[in-house]
Amino acid sequence: MKSPKIITVTSLSELRNARATLPEPIGLVPTMGFLHAGHLSLVRQARQDCASVVVSIFVNPVQFGPAEDLSKYPRDLQRDLQLLTSAGVDLVWTPTPREMYPDGYQTWISLDELVKPLEGAMRPGHFRGVATVVGKLFNCVQPQKAYFGQKDAQQAAVIRRMTNDLNFPVEIIICPIVRADDGLAMSSRNVYLNAEERQAATVLYRSLNAARAAFDKGERDANTLRRIMTDTINSEPLASLQYVSCANYDTLIELEAITGKSLLSMAVFLGKTRLIDNMVLG
Amino acid sequence: MKSPKIITVTSLSELRNARATLPEPIGLVPTMGFLHAGHLSLVRQARQDCASVVVSIFVNPVQFGPAEDLSKYPRDLQRDLQLLTSAGVDLVWTPTPREMYPDGYQTWISLDELVKPLEGAMRPGHFRGVATVVGKLFNCVQPQKAYFGQKDAQQAAVIRRMTNDLNFPVEIIICPIVRADDGLAMSSRNVYLNAEERQAATVLYRSLNAARAAFDKGERDANTLRRIMTDTINSEPLASLQYVSCANYDTLIELEAITGKSLLSMAVFLGKTRLIDNMVLG
Repeated sequence: MKSPKIITVTSLSELRNARATLPEPIGLVPTMGFLHAGHLSLVRQARQDCASVVVSIFVNPVQFGPAEDLSKYPRDLQRDLQLLTSAGVDLVWTPTPREMYPDGYQTWISLDELVKPLEGAMRPGHFRGVATVVGKLFNCVQPQKAYFGQKDAQQAAVIRRMTNDLNFPVEIIICPIVRADDGLAMSSRNVYLNAEERQAATVLYRSLNAARAAFDKGERDANTLRRIMTDTINSEPLASLQYVSCANYDTLIELEAITGKSLLSMAVFLGKTRLIDNMVLG
Repeated sequence: MKSPKIITVTSLSELRNARATLPEPIGLVPTMGFLHAGHLSLVRQARQDCASVVVSIFVNPVQFGPAEDLSKYPRDLQRDLQLLTSAGVDLVWTPTPREMYPDGYQTWISLDELVKPLEGAMRPGHFRGVATVVGKLFNCVQPQKAYFGQKDAQQAAVIRRMTNDLNFPVEIIICPIVRADDGLAMSSRNVYLNAEERQAATVLYRSLNAARAAFDKGERDANTLRRIMTDTINSEPLASLQYVSCANYDTLIELEAITGKSLLSMAVFLGKTRLIDNMVLG
């Protein structure tokens, strides 16, 4: 019988002490909190693979741009802890911004190419903040495995690349997107949607499915697949397209024709809420 | 009795296998080879502190500028291995540039402020290369302690800062400068000096001693200390001063007056050979 005991720590020294008591292998699930079924699927996978599961909850300030939603990013620690206790997590770490980025902090992990297109083009500095905090989390927790969602496809590519480039002794496991019954990908930001926008938001998944249907019938021209996604998004009056992409799965370079593993992805505004979604082909 | 058996590995997978057999704590001494008494003092300290000593030998291409001496940087692996065997090192790792920086490599560790003055101003990108390779070496070897020389004072400050900022679970130990009998700091680049330059090169240490003598008599004005060093260097016809500095020990910001721990440092050309030296005050 699994004990429902969960350890919650805040400071780095508490974390290191608690971490030393946990049997290995250790699986880390880094989150920004406000957990949903997507996060819980990562926890479930970690629980299955590892002797111990550590979840970090940290709304990482350095990955938010000045015009982004850091201060109003949704938070509900009590609910998060209940969910993680039920999920059989061993240790929850909720560091403070001050301990993660003390006065005089000045070190960054950055990537040259992978951060340029897609989300990186729309959110300058975002992936530098992501890569830096993930490197810090790895060094603090020292997990054997770490779990991320395919929902943030470019983030997953950046983390795979930086883990490999910097030789972090951590296995990166990317878990599939979890969707609501109507297909909307789980996201903490879905809470911002009003009822009409929430309904319209299914257009992201519908557009991905339309492109995949064409692919399944043999379509390999990337422009055609991008146009199918664009036309579907534009058919929804409440949706405003920011970008669509049909790119190489690892390099994220835009394709002319699909030959190998590829990524369809997009960013769409529903009102003021920016949503992303993606699908892997091939 | 210490066995003289030494393990030498090249590939990362060999390293990980060999490292797993070594008792902890593990001390890492990162070097670019062509070892001298300075390196051996680091090895001796590591041998004293740690159950196992790992030395890496890697002339790190990404810390050399396009106009610098990468291709002619001195190398003598056979001699290095003999010295390290005699010094009781357990494991020597000689990675290849290709395995450290494979095709598509694109991840960098960089610092904002500490890399701007002094060596950083003269060698753009140098400390990005240093911080990146040190992060990689830490992740590959996973030592408990790592040893660096005070000779490269700014490098030591950069590594202390980046280790702390990124939460690497490694204790950084900075060992004192080792000098020849006439005061010249040990450096692999000393081999470039001809007999006359070698003799003139003692001017670096003489200028540091002149400034320290003034400090010991109560001088606290940083401009005066800088002028003493400058005048001493300029009195040596074969020496050409690049910079002198009197800065805060941790931040490397130039001082007006010495109040706490401070660093006197300089870069001087003897012919085509660029030498650096420094001394800590307070």
